[in-house]
Amino acid sequence: MKIEGKAYRTIWFENNCVKIVDQTKLPHQFIIKDLKTIKDAINAIKTMEVRGAPLIGATAAYGLVLSIIENKDQSFLKKSSEELIASRPTAINLKWAVDRMMKKLSGINSNEILKIALEEVKIIVEEDVEFCKHIGFNGLKIIEEIYNKKKDTVNILTHCNAGWLATIDWGTATSPIYHAHKKGIKLHVWVDETRPRNQGANLTSYELNEEGIPNTIIADNTGGILMQRGDVDMCIVGTDRTLSNGDVCNKIGTYLKALAAHDNNVPFYVA
Amino acid sequence: MKIEGKAYRTIWFENNCVKIVDQTKLPHQFIIKDLKTIKDAINAIKTMEVRGAPLIGATAAYGLVLSIIENKDQSFLKKSSEELIASRPTAINLKWAVDRMMKKLSGINSNEILKIALEEVKIIVEEDVEFCKHIGFNGLKIIEEIYNKKKDTVNILTHCNAGWLATIDWGTATSPIYHAHKKGIKLHVWVDETRPRNQGANLTSYELNEEGIPNTIIADNTGGILMQRGDVDMCIVGTDRTLSNGDVCNKIGTYLKALAAHDNNVPFYVA
Repeated sequence: MKIEGKAYRTIWFENNCVKIVDQTKLPHQFIIKDLKTIKDAINAIKTMEVRGAPLIGATAAYGLVLSIIENKDQSFLKKSSEELIASRPTAINLKWAVDRMMKKLSGINSNEILKIALEEVKIIVEEDVEFCKHIGFNGLKIIEEIYNKKKDTVNILTHCNAGWLATIDWGTATSPIYHAHKKGIKLHVWVDETRPRNQGANLTSYELNEEGIPNTIIADNTGGILMQRGDVDMCIVGTDRTLSNGDVCNKIGTYLKALAAHDNNVPFYVA
Repeated sequence: MKIEGKAYRTIWFENNCVKIVDQTKLPHQFIIKDLKTIKDAINAIKTMEVRGAPLIGATAAYGLVLSIIENKDQSFLKKSSEELIASRPTAINLKWAVDRMMKKLSGINSNEILKIALEEVKIIVEEDVEFCKHIGFNGLKIIEEIYNKKKDTVNILTHCNAGWLATIDWGTATSPIYHAHKKGIKLHVWVDETRPRNQGANLTSYELNEEGIPNTIIADNTGGILMQRGDVDMCIVGTDRTLSNGDVCNKIGTYLKALAAHDNNVPFYVA
């Protein structure tokens, strides 16, 4: 998606370096940072320079690429994979991406290992973009339906940042919003500031602004009364983990908004 | 209640001056401020140097005393009363206190008017202290019951500041807590930070600390999961307005906590 009119992804490989947007500096500074070693990758996850479950997964996969560039030895790779998994507790994509990479890379001692790693990380990344795009196609239908019935601006509440900054591109919760916006549907987004780390205020509002989508940052306490007043047509949030029974674990505060949506018959979606 | 071991009230009259604690400076500085004119009193309400429904009411009543000291003319008094009522929208005590004072003072052109005003404001203030004390006696029974059953620390969640800083003394939501603490019941309070103005983080935690009551400031989003985990034995909050049907209007976010309490069978009280 766009920053100052230019299309970016959140992470890419260039000149034996992994490039990321340092998200701790947003919305005040847009800084592209080089990750050169496995330590850099782990540090980026730990300090939340990258965050969001899918992006953490991609960063971990790229971290193993950096590990291989540093040292092709299998024992070094194994140690890297373990350190990566330990770097952040919540996002399941982290372990998933590391396991997937290690399945491809374990036992490979040839010079091919870097090429194989780069191919696999590319598949992971492009898959994520496709997943997000298709979340967008599905969510677009829901937004269109509301719009066709209401024939006026659709007010969408979101919590935390499940935007493109949390993924590679498009985002999860924001993907339907971006697709609807591109289709010319009038939208307004209520952005929970999302205490304690303020990812809504710092990231979601920022990326919506850069795409030209009207939005308002609200204190996390505000969603309830907005729903009571009929000022929210739908809620949509991301998910850190999705259970086989359909339950989701997501950023703290999601539960309170789901309760309020239930109490006010506001449809609540997890992207 | 105590600040650095010394007992205070939030407002008092001394040397033709109304003394308040400037609550915009808490918890970093404890500053006693002089209100000398009706303008000072209105300004203190508008800028939230005083806040909390009962304290706003008392400040408005004292404001009329200052107005009389400035100018005994009935038309000046009437103008003061109107400006006071317009100074803050939410707290019903503001209008209630002004109306009550004006009922006593309207039409009095004798030199007695200041004496009458001071007598009435004293009654208002002492009444409030008594109300808060009795809220404490009632709430204490509830806390005792939980403690006798649990035989361990009672965890109480509160939202915003309905503490003694919001009243004249004791507070509303905190009064049962202070009374239980004095009785030796082991307590721990979860203090919602209370965005957007952070009255929980800045005021409630501060006054609990000064009384030696263990407490933890939490993001407003946190109460839900604490209740799900059984870490909250009861919730207690204040009220800005109480309707005849028992509904209450209170600080934004109260509703979300009430929903979570309901969903987790945690008793929820309005003091």
